[in-house]
Amino acid sequence: MGRTELEVLEANDAFYRAFRGHDAVGMAALWAEDHPVACIHPGSDVVTGRDAVLASWRAVLVPGGAPRLSCSHAEPHVLGEVAFVTCHEVLRDGARLAATNVFVRERGAWRMSHHQATPIAPGQLRPRAPVGPAN
Amino acid sequence: MGRTELEVLEANDAFYRAFRGHDAVGMAALWAEDHPVACIHPGSDVVTGRDAVLASWRAVLVPGGAPRLSCSHAEPHVLGEVAFVTCHEVLRDGARLAATNVFVRERGAWRMSHHQATPIAPGQLRPRAPVGPAN
Repeated sequence: MGRTELEVLEANDAFYRAFRGHDAVGMAALWAEDHPVACIHPGSDVVTGRDAVLASWRAVLVPGGAPRLSCSHAEPHVLGEVAFVTCHEVLRDGARLAATNVFVRERGAWRMSHHQATPIAPGQLRPRAPVGPAN
Repeated sequence: MGRTELEVLEANDAFYRAFRGHDAVGMAALWAEDHPVACIHPGSDVVTGRDAVLASWRAVLVPGGAPRLSCSHAEPHVLGEVAFVTCHEVLRDGARLAATNVFVRERGAWRMSHHQATPIAPGQLRPRAPVGPAN
């Protein structure tokens, strides 16, 4: 895996650290400021625009508002100055969501431009080679 | 709306024409060849790689395999040589999915790099200004 892919995975990890930590300030710092921003929370309509997206995250990141989850099976897909990560979000009961996180390089840093997560229905997990524990 | 945004919306329209028309050949022509490709169908796990993604679409586009749907509320978000569209996929019974379609400029054309669609739960539609009929 190349340096760019590792940088993108690090940005993806930072997103899940903010998510797990209910860190709305850290979350806000991750999102792009010079590019379009949108978000589709599970079961929800599209939210567009940085202010609306950050407000949606503040609502999610209140105590009791977001389930605890970890990220697994993260795969970076680099498209030049933009990259997206596909991954699993693993809930404590073992249920999984399939997520897309789009990043754009902004003043040297990979910032989030879009997030979408979808529950994976029971029985729909694809077989994969074994990986380490969810991180 | 600028020329780039209109080009991206036209690529998005072509995707939904292929989808509605159960046109697996047309669908294959839309997907990128020189960049990473992934797809998350509703309720499904992540599919990565052009061959696997196109196989997943061939399975969806068989008669009776894909619900008839139209695209509405398409919004282009341009990130340089990459763009993503957020939109609704509207089923005949009125149910809606929220979708992300990522495009990358490849040899002058906007080609698909990623698709994800999530059902919007009842009661979760955001109010919007009126728009024309789903197209």
